[in-house]
Amino acid sequence: VIHSKSVEDLAARLAAFPGIGPKTALRLALHVLRIPPQEVEALARSILQVQQRVRRCAVCHVMTETDPCPVCTDQGRDQGLLMVVEDSEDVAAVERTGAYRGRYHVLGGVLSPLEGVGPQDLNLDSLRARLRTGGLREVILAVNPTLEGEATTLYLQRLLRDADLAVTRLARGIPVGGQLDQYDEVTLEKAITGRSPA
Amino acid sequence: VIHSKSVEDLAARLAAFPGIGPKTALRLALHVLRIPPQEVEALARSILQVQQRVRRCAVCHVMTETDPCPVCTDQGRDQGLLMVVEDSEDVAAVERTGAYRGRYHVLGGVLSPLEGVGPQDLNLDSLRARLRTGGLREVILAVNPTLEGEATTLYLQRLLRDADLAVTRLARGIPVGGQLDQYDEVTLEKAITGRSPA
Repeated sequence: VIHSKSVEDLAARLAAFPGIGPKTALRLALHVLRIPPQEVEALARSILQVQQRVRRCAVCHVMTETDPCPVCTDQGRDQGLLMVVEDSEDVAAVERTGAYRGRYHVLGGVLSPLEGVGPQDLNLDSLRARLRTGGLREVILAVNPTLEGEATTLYLQRLLRDADLAVTRLARGIPVGGQLDQYDEVTLEKAITGRSPA
Repeated sequence: VIHSKSVEDLAARLAAFPGIGPKTALRLALHVLRIPPQEVEALARSILQVQQRVRRCAVCHVMTETDPCPVCTDQGRDQGLLMVVEDSEDVAAVERTGAYRGRYHVLGGVLSPLEGVGPQDLNLDSLRARLRTGGLREVILAVNPTLEGEATTLYLQRLLRDADLAVTRLARGIPVGGQLDQYDEVTLEKAITGRSPA
């Protein structure tokens, strides 16, 4: 394609997506020319629908198409168990394991003084409300163990200190398929102290 | 996002693009949720416009938004010089060098008996017509030097044998098996200025 403002415009929009460089963006834009017209229309419609249909669950704040979300309305779930995570993709990742039958609470981020994210920017009011009314037995802190995530976990530990429930966090250690010398000392130390019977 | 048919649908459509795996497709689909509504609408519109506005030039068959294309209508171009290429992206690549001031003819592919592509499937009738009426001085064969491209170049050499004009091809700065739009402008420029008799 030469001198096509519409291809350049689309490529520029796609290059704004994470992980998409200018060359890939151009390749994707050009591919649109090779798709049958009705599929191009379906693609454009699909993009609009994602934005129109996906919303946040008013209870746990996960992104989903129904409010409350299917997890919050599932009576087969353990109502006494709550996992606190950073964002919706963490919920999706845990759901894929099939190993968790409790509910979730999505914080919507982590505390980050440098980026101006304080406690008031996270979904903490609704967390407090759930703690008061939820009949909870255990809260699992599953914020990602980054520097800011750890600070957030510390904050949550203090917030939950006086509540009458067990507060746990995900085990840290060497991932499946990982090698001991690939990971930092703290991770390795956690893996050793948290060792379990073989 | 959990249990979202619209995100899954968009991810599936994006995974059909070349070089986009299922994970990248999901990441791109989720990114749509982070874009402001008016930009999502602009993206959807941009996709539709690419298909609606881009067409083929009736003279040289390049994909462009105007027919005839800006190159074919540019009177400042050398009317005696014609470069034969596989597709529109080759034209775009040569144009980026700024080293060529002639016109183009896009074949729309290469001969490929295995994939059932014969001479009747390429833009050869219009090439013959241009040879008859074009007042051409030189034809540059710039089909990609792949196996099938070389066979196509051979076919073109025979087709042009009796015409009263110089037939040249790009210098072998492009490695065998390579494609024009994979290489930098300098390499491509050397290949153009160093073209040799076919």
